[in-house]
Amino acid sequence: MALKALFLNCTLKKSPSVSNTEALIKKVATLFQLKDVETEIIRVVDYKVHFGVSSDEGEGDEWPKILEKIKTCNILIIGSPIWFGVRGSVTQLVMERLDGTYAEADKLNGQYPLYNRVAGVIVTGNEDGAHNVAAHTLFNLTHLGCTIPPNADCYWVGEAGPGPSYIEAGGDKHLYTNRTARFMVENLTFMADQLQRHPITTNLNMLNQQAEEVS
Amino acid sequence: MALKALFLNCTLKKSPSVSNTEALIKKVATLFQLKDVETEIIRVVDYKVHFGVSSDEGEGDEWPKILEKIKTCNILIIGSPIWFGVRGSVTQLVMERLDGTYAEADKLNGQYPLYNRVAGVIVTGNEDGAHNVAAHTLFNLTHLGCTIPPNADCYWVGEAGPGPSYIEAGGDKHLYTNRTARFMVENLTFMADQLQRHPITTNLNMLNQQAEEVS
Amino acid sequence: MALKALFLNCTLKKSPSVSNTEALIKKVATLFQLKDVETEIIRVVDYKVHFGVSSDEGEGDEWPKILEKIKTCNILIIGSPIWFGVRGSVTQLVMERLDGTYAEADKLNGQYPLYNRVAGVIVTGNEDGAHNVAAHTLFNLTHLGCTIPPNADCYWVGEAGPGPSYIEAGGDKHLYTNRTARFMVENLTFMADQLQRHPITTNLNMLNQQAEEVS
Amino acid sequence: MALKALFLNCTLKKSPSVSNTEALIKKVATLFQLKDVETEIIRVVDYKVHFGVSSDEGEGDEWPKILEKIKTCNILIIGSPIWFGVRGSVTQLVMERLDGTYAEADKLNGQYPLYNRVAGVIVTGNEDGAHNVAAHTLFNLTHLGCTIPPNADCYWVGEAGPGPSYIEAGGDKHLYTNRTARFMVENLTFMADQLQRHPITTNLNMLNQQAEEVS
Repeated sequence: MALKALFLNCTLKKSPSVSNTEALIKKVATLFQLKDVETEIIRVVDYKVHFGVSSDEGEGDEWPKILEKIKTCNILIIGSPIWFGVRGSVTQLVMERLDGTYAEADKLNGQYPLYNRVAGVIVTGNEDGAHNVAAHTLFNLTHLGCTIPPNADCYWVGEAGPGPSYIEAGGDKHLYTNRTARFMVENLTFMADQLQRHPITTNLNMLNQQAEEVS
Repeated sequence: MALKALFLNCTLKKSPSVSNTEALIKKVATLFQLKDVETEIIRVVDYKVHFGVSSDEGEGDEWPKILEKIKTCNILIIGSPIWFGVRGSVTQLVMERLDGTYAEADKLNGQYPLYNRVAGVIVTGNEDGAHNVAAHTLFNLTHLGCTIPPNADCYWVGEAGPGPSYIEAGGDKHLYTNRTARFMVENLTFMADQLQRHPITTNLNMLNQQAEEVS
Repeated sequence: MALKALFLNCTLKKSPSVSNTEALIKKVATLFQLKDVETEIIRVVDYKVHFGVSSDEGEGDEWPKILEKIKTCNILIIGSPIWFGVRGSVTQLVMERLDGTYAEADKLNGQYPLYNRVAGVIVTGNEDGAHNVAAHTLFNLTHLGCTIPPNADCYWVGEAGPGPSYIEAGGDKHLYTNRTARFMVENLTFMADQLQRHPITTNLNMLNQQAEEVS
Repeated sequence: MALKALFLNCTLKKSPSVSNTEALIKKVATLFQLKDVETEIIRVVDYKVHFGVSSDEGEGDEWPKILEKIKTCNILIIGSPIWFGVRGSVTQLVMERLDGTYAEADKLNGQYPLYNRVAGVIVTGNEDGAHNVAAHTLFNLTHLGCTIPPNADCYWVGEAGPGPSYIEAGGDKHLYTNRTARFMVENLTFMADQLQRHPITTNLNMLNQQAEEVS
């Protein structure tokens, strides 16, 4: 079955504003398509996503629409801007909402909904902070059930201080970013394919029971 | 072939001082042994490891001895104390030395020596900082070539402020730590086994060449 | 003139939901009142604050109401929950909106509006992440113009993993938190008083000009 | 009395190796000298500093020599390289050793030795991570007693990925770095002068006693 990659663009700016993060996301999406991976890009801020840590925060909350897509993708990629050296508020909002998935574990094996998905991260900023954004975001995603293959991130940042962003600076030509985009696509696809063929067999419920018995 | 798990205990204290991080490492090691995974624990500070970012910093440098073991394990686990909310200096020293492995990529496919290894992290502190330590350490290890399965970390920290450490506080009985220790062991073993059967096929050299051509 | 302390409670939960962060904020506010410092607590999520990085994001944006209070306080305290080991999305939203103040520098000396204010941070979470939240938040506030005296943070977190929050856990009795609450109040008040008497004389415009000339 | 600024250069490289961090430190030192502030630069790795968290780790430990200078400066500036997106191991080692100063509080008012000192940070890296290094380092220094004025950091980083370092890249001409160097020097000097005239009066012992009584 064809693999599906879902990109959550966590820019602060609603459509149709230009998003630098989206420019890099689109580049990566094209690389996935060349490998016959289906792609979909969601700009989170175009939806009405409430603050909260459950999977449904009530009337008017459009997070459930996004979550449904997350649950059926093979490859989840968070696209985040950097603000003040850390991940933007919309990225953080998305992570907080994913907290709700812990409560939706599989009844038999206890695995959370994001198990057997692979995750990557795309970061853009006019300067500094990409490691911080990528590290925390990928780590959080492992807690939620995702597997992270090697070189699963791709970012562009400029020199110290304010300056042009990805598009204006011609980040499109930046070799390091273009190289890591390819590494990311190849490794995420490889690992997603592996997990589709050989899903993780861990029974969290059983392990939890063992932990309760001995400790 | 039997899987091998290598633990680098990055405590600041030389043997035979008691290390809280080692206490938790040993617990996890025992769980690996029950799954027929071979284990070895190295207390880094017992070796004379020089500061630097290459794989051999010259006369008297004992890092090459440790690195040799890293290159032949299937599962690499960094055990780190927390100091001032971040990873200890010995952990950071270890990461810096691993920077040297980028220069030892496979000639044919360009993969770094840590490719096809899985990684996890164990953190202890009397309080606060485990997410920070785990996030940065696991992320750095993905850059170096490691794969991170879900729930690949295990930590113990106490309440806010100074207080007893893992051993004294009876962290041994802490359910969350014991539960995540089991999740970590099961998932690392599963993924290491998968990577042994189906190594990552990515050719970084070829992708790098493609990036150079188009950008 | 009496000093004024403004607390921004960045909980994700709207009033009248119980906020653990607010419980600790109120404790600190009471300590300020004993020193004749006026206090005001704003729960940010009760206002309609748009995503963005300017001081006014247009129709319906209520950030300008909050910003007005920020500009006239002497002591600014960010109260933040921890989610996934880092500061919550509402805290990040507040920092992003403060980015707009760079554009409102004093015409003569170039100082940003937050110059001559002191800042502190209050953090609550059921576990781990307080150092990360405090470090980034206080650092961002120095960029924006605030001065940070010693021991300007106060936090409560529980042991590793899910567990009761500040109120339920009886964090109210936690000595470290109560001690640092007092350190924070005393030092912030001292420094705010000093800055009221002896404002910072730095002329950023002049220094900027010097930098442009030589570099 | 003349103010004194002490720079701890936390490069990994021993003298006489060229240190990019030192190049930027020297630039900032020159700016201090123009304001009649005495300056001293210590390259920490040239001393034999043991791992540990006390102020004297026994035979051969040369940290006490450095600590003596720290205790008598007015302005403490940590110069740090970035490795793997976070502060280098020598910087972390320095922070860990400063942990020992908590035990040397003033008998009467309980203030730690770093009280009434101001602190700043200088960061260089070929790319990404400066915010992380600065945020954690300045925050840690507030815990230890330092005051942080506005704009107390100065850094240079290049674009995403490997690339030339500060000296080779001509970071010397980078306007943002040169501007913030001046902001830092002016504000640190102003605040150090204020603290020399009006030392912090907080009695930590008394506040601690109050906290113990009520909680």
